[in-house]
Amino acid sequence: MAAAEYEPSVVLSNTTYDVIGTRPIRHDGADKVTGRALYGADYQSAGLLHGKILRSPHAHARINSIDTGKAEALQGVYAVVTFQDLPDTPSGATVDYGEGAMDLGYMRTNVMAKDKVLYVGHAIAGVAAISDHVAEEALNLMEVEYEVLPSVVTAPDGMSGDAPILIDELRTNELGREGGGPSNVAEHFRHELGDVAQGFLQADVVVEKEFNTAMVHQGYIEPQNVTALWNNDGRVHIWTSTQGPFEVRGAVAACLDVPVSQVKVTPMEIGGGFGGKFPLYHDPVAALLSKKTGRAVKIVMTRKEVFEGTGPTSGSYIRVKIGATNDGKITAAEAYLAYEAGGYPGSPVGAAAETVFGPYDLANVVIDGYDVLVNKPKAGAYRAPGATNAAFAAETVIDELAEKLGLDPVEFRLNNAAKEGTRRASGLVFPRIGMIEMLEALKSHPHWNAPLDGPNKGRGVAVGYWMNGGAESSCTISINADGTLNLIEGSADIGGTRTSVAMQAAEVLGIKAEQVHPAVADTDSIGYTSGTGGSSVTFKTGWAAHEAAQHLKEQLVQRAASIWDIDAEAVTLEGGVFQSKSDPELRMSFQELAARLNGTGGPIAGRGSVNASGPGGAFAGCIADVEVDPETGKVDILRFTVVQDTGKAIHPSYVEGQMQGGAAQGIGWALNEEYYMSESGQMLNSSLLDYRMPTSLDLPMIDTVIVEVPNPNHPFGVRGVGEVPIIPPPAAVANAIYRAVGVRMDRLPMNPVAIMEAIWKLNG
Amino acid sequence: MAAAEYEPSVVLSNTTYDVIGTRPIRHDGADKVTGRALYGADYQSAGLLHGKILRSPHAHARINSIDTGKAEALQGVYAVVTFQDLPDTPSGATVDYGEGAMDLGYMRTNVMAKDKVLYVGHAIAGVAAISDHVAEEALNLMEVEYEVLPSVVTAPDGMSGDAPILIDELRTNELGREGGGPSNVAEHFRHELGDVAQGFLQADVVVEKEFNTAMVHQGYIEPQNVTALWNNDGRVHIWTSTQGPFEVRGAVAACLDVPVSQVKVTPMEIGGGFGGKFPLYHDPVAALLSKKTGRAVKIVMTRKEVFEGTGPTSGSYIRVKIGATNDGKITAAEAYLAYEAGGYPGSPVGAAAETVFGPYDLANVVIDGYDVLVNKPKAGAYRAPGATNAAFAAETVIDELAEKLGLDPVEFRLNNAAKEGTRRASGLVFPRIGMIEMLEALKSHPHWNAPLDGPNKGRGVAVGYWMNGGAESSCTISINADGTLNLIEGSADIGGTRTSVAMQAAEVLGIKAEQVHPAVADTDSIGYTSGTGGSSVTFKTGWAAHEAAQHLKEQLVQRAASIWDIDAEAVTLEGGVFQSKSDPELRMSFQELAARLNGTGGPIAGRGSVNASGPGGAFAGCIADVEVDPETGKVDILRFTVVQDTGKAIHPSYVEGQMQGGAAQGIGWALNEEYYMSESGQMLNSSLLDYRMPTSLDLPMIDTVIVEVPNPNHPFGVRGVGEVPIIPPPAAVANAIYRAVGVRMDRLPMNPVAIMEAIWKLNG
Repeated sequence: MAAAEYEPSVVLSNTTYDVIGTRPIRHDGADKVTGRALYGADYQSAGLLHGKILRSPHAHARINSIDTGKAEALQGVYAVVTFQDLPDTPSGATVDYGEGAMDLGYMRTNVMAKDKVLYVGHAIAGVAAISDHVAEEALNLMEVEYEVLPSVVTAPDGMSGDAPILIDELRTNELGREGGGPSNVAEHFRHELGDVAQGFLQADVVVEKEFNTAMVHQGYIEPQNVTALWNNDGRVHIWTSTQGPFEVRGAVAACLDVPVSQVKVTPMEIGGGFGGKFPLYHDPVAALLSKKTGRAVKIVMTRKEVFEGTGPTSGSYIRVKIGATNDGKITAAEAYLAYEAGGYPGSPVGAAAETVFGPYDLANVVIDGYDVLVNKPKAGAYRAPGATNAAFAAETVIDELAEKLGLDPVEFRLNNAAKEGTRRASGLVFPRIGMIEMLEALKSHPHWNAPLDGPNKGRGVAVGYWMNGGAESSCTISINADGTLNLIEGSADIGGTRTSVAMQAAEVLGIKAEQVHPAVADTDSIGYTSGTGGSSVTFKTGWAAHEAAQHLKEQLVQRAASIWDIDAEAVTLEGGVFQSKSDPELRMSFQELAARLNGTGGPIAGRGSVNASGPGGAFAGCIADVEVDPETGKVDILRFTVVQDTGKAIHPSYVEGQMQGGAAQGIGWALNEEYYMSESGQMLNSSLLDYRMPTSLDLPMIDTVIVEVPNPNHPFGVRGVGEVPIIPPPAAVANAIYRAVGVRMDRLPMNPVAIMEAIWKLNG
Repeated sequence: MAAAEYEPSVVLSNTTYDVIGTRPIRHDGADKVTGRALYGADYQSAGLLHGKILRSPHAHARINSIDTGKAEALQGVYAVVTFQDLPDTPSGATVDYGEGAMDLGYMRTNVMAKDKVLYVGHAIAGVAAISDHVAEEALNLMEVEYEVLPSVVTAPDGMSGDAPILIDELRTNELGREGGGPSNVAEHFRHELGDVAQGFLQADVVVEKEFNTAMVHQGYIEPQNVTALWNNDGRVHIWTSTQGPFEVRGAVAACLDVPVSQVKVTPMEIGGGFGGKFPLYHDPVAALLSKKTGRAVKIVMTRKEVFEGTGPTSGSYIRVKIGATNDGKITAAEAYLAYEAGGYPGSPVGAAAETVFGPYDLANVVIDGYDVLVNKPKAGAYRAPGATNAAFAAETVIDELAEKLGLDPVEFRLNNAAKEGTRRASGLVFPRIGMIEMLEALKSHPHWNAPLDGPNKGRGVAVGYWMNGGAESSCTISINADGTLNLIEGSADIGGTRTSVAMQAAEVLGIKAEQVHPAVADTDSIGYTSGTGGSSVTFKTGWAAHEAAQHLKEQLVQRAASIWDIDAEAVTLEGGVFQSKSDPELRMSFQELAARLNGTGGPIAGRGSVNASGPGGAFAGCIADVEVDPETGKVDILRFTVVQDTGKAIHPSYVEGQMQGGAAQGIGWALNEEYYMSESGQMLNSSLLDYRMPTSLDLPMIDTVIVEVPNPNHPFGVRGVGEVPIIPPPAAVANAIYRAVGVRMDRLPMNPVAIMEAIWKLNG
């Protein structure tokens, strides 16, 4: 396999900066590479107990009784909790847990099942014991009487008339049973724009296809973990690996029916999240066990528990139909998106609908979305949730359409590209975006124009769109006597954002990134900060840091002015030097002023709080070269390039890292990853040996092209960058496979079995 | 022993407050009483090494060689460090370590001796090993060749012409040897006011006496401890029990010659400080051991090390001469104060000079202060450093003078009391103070007016003055959706100041103290905050909290106004309710607005930074009833009352606690505590069994009277309260002993031996 030479390049740029756009070493680098960073599993304290969770072996069953007597009697067991120990305050409330929201009642029964289990791995009870081993032994002594029910594991099966019903009270009229009876459809919505029937009439060519994609897991290395201490004064302290410390605080408080101010969450370092470290699982269980025992209780999941008991992203059934004229104009597009929610409502089908035709400027669109309960773990967020499945469908249809029209697939996309002012079916209108600039950069890239010779080789292209997020963030900055800054933020750092945030503060003040020491604080020590999701942190927390640095700068200028006994308006701060506009003798470096603060009126701190809106959309395109072994169905990725409109890239290396990481995960979706389920709802590959994610040996060096179309809604032009690169790879690989061996793939993963079946079918 | 009934009472008051003056439960109470608060010795981490310090067995010796080879070869030993491992950057710099400052060169040789040891317990080398036991064994294998030198252990001996010289380069001209040769006097200063010779000529009665007081230790329960991690990126992280995290940061940085921003100090909970948890000892040693080993290194002192290797307060030789007219007016006062600095310059003689005649309005004063090196541990700060020794001397002379003049001792003091405008010998002029109000309260107290019958019983009175401190402090406040606040401060909490600071924020905002969650942050997470000393925290950090709460209030009022679409000027916040001045319909509780912040422009935080000056002085008076056993010399305290001008008492219970605690320690000084030294400079009682501090069984309930003369320089009228109550007890007890058995005591402690010797002398 030939690795493309790694040539990162910035295609567009506008303003010149001193710090932004450079590549300093990350502030937490030393801690991470020396193993000193403290993760949740590293938590230690005197008298710590170890918790374990009893989980359902059945995909669907009624719980007739739970007898924990023998477990409680085991020596070394301190406490057992079940659903009975959770408060039973009236539900109806919806709890935001970061990337998603959930009915409080469902949240509690997902934390510990009440009268039914809805998937294999559904938590039922918790135990705290003197050691992991004793806790595990106690699990074996718990006696649960189940009445096993028939189960269902795909969205189409879940929607069928004779499907077993997971939650009796759900009734979705549009697609409910006859007479509006119980249904597994938790939600149906439709987005409409223009007149789609008319649109298809105008089309010269129409392509319509069905797709099935498997449930996949985020595959973070670090399992979920928590330590909880319910103190005697009623305060609950939670140490955990999370993307949203404030959302954990809110969800734990809601679940346990205590005020948020009684809960303190300390976010430990996080060994990968990708959206999966948002939802609430064992945290309330650990808290209740701590309340019962008076001790801190730690729970760390096993890999099997991570696969079976946490939230992967939805498998889906998708139908896409697109029509276009011979001159390459799309006239109508239709999508039917049925997403697996898992055991409780809440798949990412909403985002799928928002993004499925996002890259295009379309006049006539209908999108139907269905959120369907199945006997699988409740779906969680996974990097651009819902969008990768949808783009796999839409972008292979676009490719086939271009082919049938005899058009270059990039030109066809350029012909129909979304731009500023494009209205989407959801009603939203695009601000300044870089879809066209991104496609132009892709078109002119050496990879797109290089020859690809030899049999069974093919090149595919695909694009993707992601909205990105914003919301609340807080930042405070203190200044040390040596001119360095301490920056406190509330955003858990999953992708180098300590540095990308610190750089924005440094830029404002004209100092070096290394002079800023960023730290992530607990929920008692910083203002409300919404979670690290939606590719939002460099945007929102960078903005808060910009505000805090401006606030600091104002005060520093005032202090310099008061030392010189002149007006603040007469003082400038440029390149880290304070200077009087009129008197060249009055000069002071940033460091000199910092050293004088305590003696001239005391310390100075800056603070910034934002509710950041307008993150701007992000667009990415991929070029994939593959070679398919027609004997085995194995697909090798020969060369892979990601082009992305990133907005202003604060730290290009980390942006490139996000593009490469997203592409690598997208390739995993494309070729290997899936929840391989038995008919009775058992996951048969719940280990990282059997659930096969790509390793560096499976991938070429992934080439990246940063296209900078600055976001006009951010002080430095930042857009989110973390999610969009995962969206196009499966479609790009599918399109490449088609060009290599002539089969149009309609399911994920495109593993050797799927490829061989497609080839056999093609060859009759 | 009869315990006086406990009747706290507030004598003066001015403004009415909602929160200030109430007695909420302390915020850290649950953590403290359940043993969950984390102290330095609780620190754990993977791969942690245990450090020990090699200490000098000699009071004074030259080090000819240190051979650590055998120790380094011992299995389980990871590293050894000596003075050679400290940087040798040019000295001359003075390092502020909180309550005191020290030449950098001396600081380093006190951390690990270079070519001389100056006291028993002087640190020489450090070792890091797999366990405490291996580290201790390694100490035994270190070979140090000493040349033992003659030693000196009292100030008068240290000043004598033939004294062995501790530090050759010290030359104090005023009192140096003939020809300005080497001297043990590190400093001599003189304060003068008026014409003292003329003053004594005007006096009808003059009393002059000499006093000797023993070196005493703060007696905190928790030994000094530190864990240091020198990370691969050059940053040094220190976890330690300290009163001054920012001062530790500065001192460690100076000692190791790294920028302050490379050092992060996490202040652990502190098990008592009283001034003794300021100076730098093993922190740089642990850091150097960590640098050598690549591991975190923890050092926890033994009790013997605490006594011998840390900074107790000075023993002293004092001469006081005071003259007065028959009508009770003091005409002149003279003090000669020679304080033991220990092995390096820096006794609290400066503060002794400032306070010795502080309670009085005097026209003619001369005070000579001497800082004298002796072969004892380098003196540290101890609650009102230097003042207790001086007040013991001055207040027994005042008592004798009153007696000789036939005047009531309280009236005599009132006659001469300091007041606003009184100029001291140091040149400083008193602002509004409460000496007279305090004395009036004492005079009218039932204790002062109660009969005291029976043989060998006596009642004594004495007063004391302390300056109190201020300086830099920082505070940030975030607001939670349930209307509670998170308050972050940089002041280590040694006396309940989390609560006294939180109450001041609550008062500003019209909410309850319980709605504020205060937390003490590490040095990376809050702006510069000077240490917890000088009774400064409730004053300065309370002020910073007041500023932060005002800042928060401003923004909240603006937010309410913007929600109502009216001018901010039209909105009031009273009793926790926002209200429009014109429209009574527009009302919102604090909690309601808090819940709406994220949806209406984002989170809000307040910050306050002050360089607080003008703490105002504090005055305390004590009444002591004693019974002396003339057969054994044992003194029982029958009743004890402390009266104190506290300024506005934020949390009266904690103010009373400070008054009781100060009195208890003062009684310990009076009757028992001392470094009992052999002639060769060995401390013979370096355990808490032999160094006898008073227990609750030795003391009656100590009555307290809070006199509130608000400090006009603080938003709530706060003065410092922590230190002044330790000052008068020894003198009050001495004066009571005189009235019980007729002996005028001239030394501390007044233990049975001292009492019996005085009685024998009296009886000839």
